[in-house]
Amino acid sequence: MARTRTTANAPTTRAAVRGPFDEDCPSRVVLNHVANRWGTLILTCLHSQPMRFHALRDTIGGISEKMLSQNLRLLIRDGLVQRDVEPTTPPKVTYSLTPLGKELADHVQALVDWITARTDAIVAAQRRYDAQNTTNPTPDA
Amino acid sequence: MARTRTTANAPTTRAAVRGPFDEDCPSRVVLNHVANRWGTLILTCLHSQPMRFHALRDTIGGISEKMLSQNLRLLIRDGLVQRDVEPTTPPKVTYSLTPLGKELADHVQALVDWITARTDAIVAAQRRYDAQNTTNPTPDA
Repeated sequence: MARTRTTANAPTTRAAVRGPFDEDCPSRVVLNHVANRWGTLILTCLHSQPMRFHALRDTIGGISEKMLSQNLRLLIRDGLVQRDVEPTTPPKVTYSLTPLGKELADHVQALVDWITARTDAIVAAQRRYDAQNTTNPTPDA
Repeated sequence: MARTRTTANAPTTRAAVRGPFDEDCPSRVVLNHVANRWGTLILTCLHSQPMRFHALRDTIGGISEKMLSQNLRLLIRDGLVQRDVEPTTPPKVTYSLTPLGKELADHVQALVDWITARTDAIVAAQRRYDAQNTTNPTPDA
């Protein structure tokens, strides 16, 4: 798997220079937590307001409680989401963005807003592609 | 799986209002193509310059040729990436962003830049979390 890197900007100090392009760089780990549908949607939800677990589950269509728990745990560990417990009976648990998470969620929200605004153009492109590629749908490398 | 949605903003017209939160909305499909590590890294690569297949493969650490092909095909179908073939022997194939893809890649680049800049803060948070949760590493819901 140790493939020779042939691009013009191939770095000498890999992790420092390549960042998330390097699978061994810590920034790639963070990218993996954030750049997936669930991380993106959790951050977008919490960007608008703190939320409880079941409200997150009900807002994010298709997420299982297991996936929500796992992704929340990663985001909490990354210092992006904070989990507050009120000592009521039963305890009331609320998830919110940390200041670091708010910075990130601003970018994620911009991305999600763009996707939402441009979905019609993308769906139109998909239809054009499908119409042109009915006999040869797979462009090879 | 048809779960009752209980949040305050639960929409009456789901797809139109909820966007990518709705697993049936076309915008969720686009989010799935874009908000994953490979889509993000491909768009970031092409944001700097048009690239050939093998240069993309060598720049994006850990991606297999199969995953690169599949993700490029999705991004081409979405109208975000364009594939140009020069009629040389052998044919020279280059991938670049469409104008629509350039709009999106601006947002993705901002996200990747933020992650790269803030990785140290996130790694520090991970260490604090791990130190505090050696006996109880899993926060439950």
